[in-house]
Amino acid sequence: MIEREALPNPADFAGPPAAADRVRWAAADRAARPARLARLRARMAADGVDAYLGVRPEHSRYLTGLVLGDGEEKVAGYSGWFVVGADDLIVFADSRYTIQVGREAPDARIEPVYGDLGRRWPEIAAGLGARRVAAEASHLSHAAWSELAESAPTVELSPATTAGPDGEPGPGWLEIDRATKEPAELERVAAACAVADRALAALLPEIRPGVTEAELAWRLEVLIRTGGADGLAFDVACLAGPEAALPHGSPGDRPVRAGQVLLFDFGAQVAGYRSDMTRTLFVGEPAERDLAIYELVHRAQSAAIDGLRTVVEAGATLPTGVEADALTRDVIVAGGHGDHFGHGTGHGIGLATHELPSLGKRAAEAPLPSPTVFSVEPGVYLEGEMGVRIEDLVTLDVAARRLDVVTRFPRGIVVVPA
Amino acid sequence: MIEREALPNPADFAGPPAAADRVRWAAADRAARPARLARLRARMAADGVDAYLGVRPEHSRYLTGLVLGDGEEKVAGYSGWFVVGADDLIVFADSRYTIQVGREAPDARIEPVYGDLGRRWPEIAAGLGARRVAAEASHLSHAAWSELAESAPTVELSPATTAGPDGEPGPGWLEIDRATKEPAELERVAAACAVADRALAALLPEIRPGVTEAELAWRLEVLIRTGGADGLAFDVACLAGPEAALPHGSPGDRPVRAGQVLLFDFGAQVAGYRSDMTRTLFVGEPAERDLAIYELVHRAQSAAIDGLRTVVEAGATLPTGVEADALTRDVIVAGGHGDHFGHGTGHGIGLATHELPSLGKRAAEAPLPSPTVFSVEPGVYLEGEMGVRIEDLVTLDVAARRLDVVTRFPRGIVVVPA
Repeated sequence: MIEREALPNPADFAGPPAAADRVRWAAADRAARPARLARLRARMAADGVDAYLGVRPEHSRYLTGLVLGDGEEKVAGYSGWFVVGADDLIVFADSRYTIQVGREAPDARIEPVYGDLGRRWPEIAAGLGARRVAAEASHLSHAAWSELAESAPTVELSPATTAGPDGEPGPGWLEIDRATKEPAELERVAAACAVADRALAALLPEIRPGVTEAELAWRLEVLIRTGGADGLAFDVACLAGPEAALPHGSPGDRPVRAGQVLLFDFGAQVAGYRSDMTRTLFVGEPAERDLAIYELVHRAQSAAIDGLRTVVEAGATLPTGVEADALTRDVIVAGGHGDHFGHGTGHGIGLATHELPSLGKRAAEAPLPSPTVFSVEPGVYLEGEMGVRIEDLVTLDVAARRLDVVTRFPRGIVVVPA
Repeated sequence: MIEREALPNPADFAGPPAAADRVRWAAADRAARPARLARLRARMAADGVDAYLGVRPEHSRYLTGLVLGDGEEKVAGYSGWFVVGADDLIVFADSRYTIQVGREAPDARIEPVYGDLGRRWPEIAAGLGARRVAAEASHLSHAAWSELAESAPTVELSPATTAGPDGEPGPGWLEIDRATKEPAELERVAAACAVADRALAALLPEIRPGVTEAELAWRLEVLIRTGGADGLAFDVACLAGPEAALPHGSPGDRPVRAGQVLLFDFGAQVAGYRSDMTRTLFVGEPAERDLAIYELVHRAQSAAIDGLRTVVEAGATLPTGVEADALTRDVIVAGGHGDHFGHGTGHGIGLATHELPSLGKRAAEAPLPSPTVFSVEPGVYLEGEMGVRIEDLVTLDVAARRLDVVTRFPRGIVVVPA
């Protein structure tokens, strides 16, 4: 039986990031970029490629500093795509982006590319002396890949991915590199967590029967975005009662009712880095069944966090993502709800909301990386009735023998008065 | 010399959509889906393919009704991908999405696909008797395409694209279909325009020297999202003075100063459909040079709108996107600023912010479609000094001999008191 938590206050959590923090993080990124590029170039050399063609906005930001807004890649054309050569760093930009690229990616050379990549690619590749180019096959469209291949038949394209089990393509090089986090990256994830924690605490007095999911989702967004975040990590989910059984549902005009669970899944963005948390609150006195489900999910989450902490504090080899997933899943299966927990236990987070490492039944065979940060988010979903998920972000560093739960909002039973 | 406009009031524009509007639009979508599917199936038959594999969330919504949030496709895995056969409509979903797909896409069969599309694809294709499948090559990643091709070597994959000039791949089938709009689609674009118009009018009293771009962008977002929109179409751009020279810049902590231009580029989303508008306001008395640039851009925009209206009202053949682009470009070139107008004249809009038709130097050779809706947005950008863009959405319907400017916020000179 877990205890009921006192209602938290915003002041229980760290304050918003200061201007000095942002200056420090920007300096840390600038200082880290040569090492990030060197790590990629070592992979390039090992794979025998002369250049790397990247398209993910997260990678462009990581390596060059260029910041595109969420979704902006859909309207930016080729702007923001980049090429890393042995000695070169190139960012593509059309006229809408040249000023911005010059300002945000001062160490990169701007290559003007409009709607004509197929025409420009042979000369860009020739300018680098590139005969073999690794490209982000998981994000580059098949059409673009084909256009590049056909426009420069002597330039071989290969996927910038590692080999997975059974010879299947595994994760991408930069995806693997980014799973290991620098201290200034972890600081930003923690700062984003604190903004989210505070926002939910500030929202609690506004939760009462009759208010709708959409109203609460909007108010939580306002509290996040005026509370130190640069944006949301993703759209706020606020789901009441039976809607909480939809792990990726959207808030609707449904009023919250007394006796329901109320699930919030949300995150903040601070200087590019994201948080992700889920809390399932009770509005008024919980039903016995709902309490039992909550306690099961809580026990599963604790089993994973405690299990990982034991390994980390011993400085032992970390479990694989499959093994880490089993830490929560075994508890839920033993509790008789294995069929009601369909998704994985967790995912890495950073410049993207979902990144490596993956904690799930289909995760990689390798041990988890370190230092890193990921979610631990078991859930049980009873269709048509209710759902419970509890999600915290956890950072770990085996060399420092340290595991921290960076989501600080209480994860025990929180009952909001009805 | 264009006249100065009186400051508009929110009440000058249509009110927010009513619940009855939303019910009507949902019914119109349900009624239109069989015809949308039939149109796609006719393309499939003409191209000799047995099935169509789609991945764009806009297409999934258009054909099946499933709604993913903006950016949700990045964390949804294969959920939301769909297959159209001669008699089948299938939506992929993992356990997180099965309830939602069943609810929002009741006419589709749910295919449970987790991280294992390569394993499932042969049996899905076999179940449809599909030997040749058209797939969205412009959005499907090269890695996924390769995995599909390798997992079912007897199922031929071909890009679902038309042939462009010189044998290059042209636009996608559904992209072309969606450029022609149904009445209920145009209504929603107009409703989204009205929300945006009203929001900017309501913001005017808050614009004064000292307030920052970021503060104004946030306030405009609040006015849009509490004024009838379901969301933004894209992040609000608010750019003061020299920042307005960045066509895709982001608002910063820069305070607005008297004598500057102040550019807002923003849009609302109503029941899935988007608006997009740009206004360049003056904060206090405009400089002569800035007024002259504004008048040039205004004249260019008027030339395009008036030129298109003449053609539409005559029921004549519409110009191509290249010819429509020239309507604004010729004016700006004649005004001596051809080098300061690097982007295209406009783009279609609907379920996506940027879609067909394209009005630009590299647009398709075919005449513009009808009925349709697109932006007309010439601009002149003086790096380090200032920029002006004026963007309105225009709907046209040649059969009805009708062209409407659906953005109703005045497009003349608006001077906010400093």
